[in-house]
Amino acid sequence: MIYLDNAATTRPAAGAVAYAETFLREEYFNPSALYGGGFAVRGELEKARAGLLSRLADGETYELVFTSCGTEADGQAIFSCARRGNAVTTAGEHAAVYESFRELKNRGVEPRFAPLNRDGSVNIEALLELVDERTSFVSVMHVNNETGAVNDIEKIAKEVKKRTPSAIFHSDGVQAFGKIPYRLSGAVDLYSVSAHKIGGLKGTGALVKKKQLALRPLVFGGGQERGLRSGTENVFGIVAFARAAAEWGNAEEHLPHVRRLNEMVRGALENVLILSPEEGSPYILTLAAEGLRGEVLQRMLWERGVVVGTGSACSSKSRFSRVLSACGYPERVLDGVLRLSFSPQNTEEEALAASRAVNEVISEFRRKI
Amino acid sequence: MIYLDNAATTRPAAGAVAYAETFLREEYFNPSALYGGGFAVRGELEKARAGLLSRLADGETYELVFTSCGTEADGQAIFSCARRGNAVTTAGEHAAVYESFRELKNRGVEPRFAPLNRDGSVNIEALLELVDERTSFVSVMHVNNETGAVNDIEKIAKEVKKRTPSAIFHSDGVQAFGKIPYRLSGAVDLYSVSAHKIGGLKGTGALVKKKQLALRPLVFGGGQERGLRSGTENVFGIVAFARAAAEWGNAEEHLPHVRRLNEMVRGALENVLILSPEEGSPYILTLAAEGLRGEVLQRMLWERGVVVGTGSACSSKSRFSRVLSACGYPERVLDGVLRLSFSPQNTEEEALAASRAVNEVISEFRRKI
Repeated sequence: MIYLDNAATTRPAAGAVAYAETFLREEYFNPSALYGGGFAVRGELEKARAGLLSRLADGETYELVFTSCGTEADGQAIFSCARRGNAVTTAGEHAAVYESFRELKNRGVEPRFAPLNRDGSVNIEALLELVDERTSFVSVMHVNNETGAVNDIEKIAKEVKKRTPSAIFHSDGVQAFGKIPYRLSGAVDLYSVSAHKIGGLKGTGALVKKKQLALRPLVFGGGQERGLRSGTENVFGIVAFARAAAEWGNAEEHLPHVRRLNEMVRGALENVLILSPEEGSPYILTLAAEGLRGEVLQRMLWERGVVVGTGSACSSKSRFSRVLSACGYPERVLDGVLRLSFSPQNTEEEALAASRAVNEVISEFRRKI
Repeated sequence: MIYLDNAATTRPAAGAVAYAETFLREEYFNPSALYGGGFAVRGELEKARAGLLSRLADGETYELVFTSCGTEADGQAIFSCARRGNAVTTAGEHAAVYESFRELKNRGVEPRFAPLNRDGSVNIEALLELVDERTSFVSVMHVNNETGAVNDIEKIAKEVKKRTPSAIFHSDGVQAFGKIPYRLSGAVDLYSVSAHKIGGLKGTGALVKKKQLALRPLVFGGGQERGLRSGTENVFGIVAFARAAAEWGNAEEHLPHVRRLNEMVRGALENVLILSPEEGSPYILTLAAEGLRGEVLQRMLWERGVVVGTGSACSSKSRFSRVLSACGYPERVLDGVLRLSFSPQNTEEEALAASRAVNEVISEFRRKI
């Protein structure tokens, strides 16, 4: 099997799974328990927190709150901070941010959506025009999960704060963490990440936040995560997240290899429209076979042992991708979208074999219609 | 090690861990992916849902929504349904319900807390007096996690609905599921459960709900769980929950054995005050060594290889248990509380050895002071 749906979910790293198992089979104590076993587990949990945070930000300025997934981390940020006036985001956001913004309307906050450039990045000028003195919150994703376009969140955050210093700036970093070299500077207040996109386990995410920023919980209870996220901590998932991030390593290390995979596929594909920008994240390569159905191609590829996505894997039921529509593509392009997404473990041989398979299924499908 | 802190968290069942591993190592696909691997994982997830639901309720009337924990399931129920007028609960609730009710005040809903009987069960007459025509929601826990007292939630739900037919009735069933024979009748609208209290994994819970009841999400996004709980599903945790519940078996099966363990410990303990009612859940046996500090006894027991709790393991920072205070005990009792909580895997030898150890550490501690 050639697995190229890593933006949907990665195969958990063997080391992370093995480490999780220790906490499932032996160190299963409740981390709030006030005896040796509980203290030991609590210590591992805090080590995981410090380890992950150190990969993303300075521990003097920022802290990290574990959540049950990237989606919850986004919701935690949005519903905590977008509490008055208006809140600005982009038309390219993952549903976790987009649908939370739509919900803001029910809570008396006006959501504003900035348009996209053709490649899926946000139109920065248009976004800044939406920011005014009543803007309490701005959220701009770091890497677009459907095209791989990278938004310069540092620049955007600074421009937003120049206009409205009190606005809180959040970025969904789920497709960026471990893939795009980045550390939070002071301009970005909140940053969401997810374990299962870099070899960790489903069911664990985190929100990096400025220490000085007071948030409100989404989930109330026993007061875990300094009161921000109650519920018995998912210890094995948390320690596996830190282990997976450590095994994954730095974004810089893998970039040349993943760029090479991306370029090989771009070079080998025939008769397709590439939607992903060349200067975007090399981990995501989205293409369209115009006039064909991406889902059919995807299943034909599955039968050949090549696993790819079709836009976002999230359980949207609409025929066309909301985000790629917002990029301005017509229906005959939107219908034929495939997303190849890499991990550093993919090989050049896999990239070439997958490209050949994509070419073949497109030819075969075209012959049939 | 004799592990008697099963109400805080159980040791994950070997079969559940092994089954989870299949989904970590091989079947790691995103269940929203539209290819064979995604469909297979989706199928397993739905089988887990049906299997769990069948243990709790009739699938014609009820459905089951997976959440990241029991605490989230409680919050999902409360913030969805307690949206106007007042909401009634008990002073004995777990923090997941209690703190969510306190938050209701900030959302314009009046929380009302019914007093407890000495054993930790709710005073039903006092609770019913709090229910009036403006009551939108009532939540009464099934088994009290600190004393093991069982509330007759069916009877209470029917009485509540006799008074206020429009009130929605929820019960936190986290300490009851798999332990107290029970199936939801039509009177209870919502019921929360947690995987890691019956041999499943931390990070997975569920809310059983009446199909006809429209809830609102806490977490918005890709629309997973029929729109009620977005975020990539924690597949391995979900399938492990269903497997753990199946391995655990029916509540009836284990009751005689766990009752026997409970009675043996009650019979063997010396010079302690038993706070748990005899007719409560046999899984929880709470006692007080008056004038001593429970935390110290707990650590002395840990050093002898006996693991017990001190009231709720949740990360409350207050010295005294809120719930046991509400039962009416004085400080010299509250200080000395230990909670022994069983699993069906505990043996009679363990029960006797643990009782001896408790007697010993109490004598030793008393000699020192």
